[in-house]
Amino acid sequence: MSNLSNLPNLKKIVLKERPIDNPKVEGFDIIEEISRAPNDGEILVQMQALEIGAWIRTTLNEEAFHGSTPIGGTIPALGIGKVLISKSDTFKEGDIVNGPIFAQTHTTMPAEMFAKVENPEIDPFTQIAVLGVTTGLTAYFGIYEVGQVKKDDVVLVSGAAGGVGALVCQLAKIKGAKVIGVAGGKEKCEVLVNEIGADAAIDYKKDNLDEKIKEFASEGIDIFFDNVGGEILDAALDNIRDRARVVICGAISQYSHHDSVNGPSLYLRLAEKYSRMEGFTVMHFEDRYQEASKELLSLYEQGKLKIPYHIEDGIENFPLALQKLFTGGNTGKLMVKA
Amino acid sequence: MSNLSNLPNLKKIVLKERPIDNPKVEGFDIIEEISRAPNDGEILVQMQALEIGAWIRTTLNEEAFHGSTPIGGTIPALGIGKVLISKSDTFKEGDIVNGPIFAQTHTTMPAEMFAKVENPEIDPFTQIAVLGVTTGLTAYFGIYEVGQVKKDDVVLVSGAAGGVGALVCQLAKIKGAKVIGVAGGKEKCEVLVNEIGADAAIDYKKDNLDEKIKEFASEGIDIFFDNVGGEILDAALDNIRDRARVVICGAISQYSHHDSVNGPSLYLRLAEKYSRMEGFTVMHFEDRYQEASKELLSLYEQGKLKIPYHIEDGIENFPLALQKLFTGGNTGKLMVKA
Repeated sequence: MSNLSNLPNLKKIVLKERPIDNPKVEGFDIIEEISRAPNDGEILVQMQALEIGAWIRTTLNEEAFHGSTPIGGTIPALGIGKVLISKSDTFKEGDIVNGPIFAQTHTTMPAEMFAKVENPEIDPFTQIAVLGVTTGLTAYFGIYEVGQVKKDDVVLVSGAAGGVGALVCQLAKIKGAKVIGVAGGKEKCEVLVNEIGADAAIDYKKDNLDEKIKEFASEGIDIFFDNVGGEILDAALDNIRDRARVVICGAISQYSHHDSVNGPSLYLRLAEKYSRMEGFTVMHFEDRYQEASKELLSLYEQGKLKIPYHIEDGIENFPLALQKLFTGGNTGKLMVKA
Repeated sequence: MSNLSNLPNLKKIVLKERPIDNPKVEGFDIIEEISRAPNDGEILVQMQALEIGAWIRTTLNEEAFHGSTPIGGTIPALGIGKVLISKSDTFKEGDIVNGPIFAQTHTTMPAEMFAKVENPEIDPFTQIAVLGVTTGLTAYFGIYEVGQVKKDDVVLVSGAAGGVGALVCQLAKIKGAKVIGVAGGKEKCEVLVNEIGADAAIDYKKDNLDEKIKEFASEGIDIFFDNVGGEILDAALDNIRDRARVVICGAISQYSHHDSVNGPSLYLRLAEKYSRMEGFTVMHFEDRYQEASKELLSLYEQGKLKIPYHIEDGIENFPLALQKLFTGGNTGKLMVKA
């Protein structure tokens, strides 16, 4: 395989035009070309699975916190892959690695951008959905460190049937909290209660949010874990009790119009209730990834974490997967397999 | 004075119509009547000084966190007064007390609504501006407990020339922070730098907020102490650095349109910077008032606190004072004297 004439063909998804609202399949192109040969210190990785996260949308704007994807540029994505060619001492051929593969079947990159997967016997989908930086680790630090969840807290989770949300619900239950999940549609709400173990679920497409929160949390909520923003955030703020923690993990309802985000108009409830709204990105906890991965893996192996996921088949369906994320077309973590 | 036929005439300010925007003098009436005789357990207090706080505006709405003032009802206000008649064991005639006097020259109320002023030799304006619940204590708990200010923090304060703001600036300086005050107009900005000791001042009426924040805090701000809300809050959020604390003390720019508060559209900066926005009311620290008063008094007696204030003369000017608070017509704590 180190013979450069054997470099594999790759398919990659590039940005055709900047989405104005939610991303649509028409905004992307697929390009086929020969992989670039790795230089010294680089590896060539064959993608096995990619995670579809809301952060990807933010890179499609001209100005972006996670860096902007240029027109014609390959869409960024994190994933798991196998080292095909290594020109680095860190990895050998056949190693399973995770890192910024981007939306493509193969990538050639500096080895230091990747980490070796510690338990290569675990399938790549579980790796991403349980132990992934943007899933398991985000949920873990968000609800345990930022949210400081404790026994008997009443925890409301938005985007609860998503990759992060479903884990947050379960991690909160493990600490003895009461968990109310908010999701869109009857099917997702059933998954939340019957499979994820939420105490109650609210269907934001059908239910009156405020009424339902008051029904399930008559004395108010201690933690709101927000993946969504917009109306749900205000409804939650209107129902916090003293010393509540509002954890800002994401705002998927707002990413598609980043220049005109609707701020929470009820933010003064924070003063009335001596409460806080605290945001984070998982990168802020980078020096503690190992500790969290270990605990998540242990919980998973004990059967304490159920991980719903939704897999789209083939890199050509990456744009469709991204579109689905923003239209609520998935239950559980969305991924693309090779 | 205990002879009931000697009950003093009182003047009181009542609500004529609910303000739609900022309060205006036309929205109030003044009424003259004979004071009510105190029942057992009650005291009759002669007002010496009242504090004008933004919270008063919130009671003029039909639905209000601090309780709604009915049409024809006396406007609530806190102040200092002298006990004229006591039918309570707690106070004797001549005692100086503080509590909810309301906007009137005399009040008859249950004794337990009032606290005895510990240092009656201090004039009532200093009592209110330094040791008052809505001034000194609010500033103290806001910047020390909620803000957790520490040496070398860069602290931005809005409404910095107001009663709370001017104290916050000085309490932050005492801990060794760098302080930037935001106020409206050249005169207030000069007071901030020359008298209050702020390191820099920004005139929000003239300066470009974002540019000036970046000029004075090139590496970002650690604490934003907000009395104002609206545009200033967003400008501050756009300039926080990692682990910043945004302290929500008030939102004077928003109280006059409480039903349609502009939420901070840049709240997602909290996630990007692993930062928090935390609100409070001073009532949440009620069990620690004594400790804080003692420390504030000690700082004041050592000459470490300069307290600018603005006094309107006579209860008939209470509506004008309230109007001024919302149009920026005061430097320092606004009060009404008897």
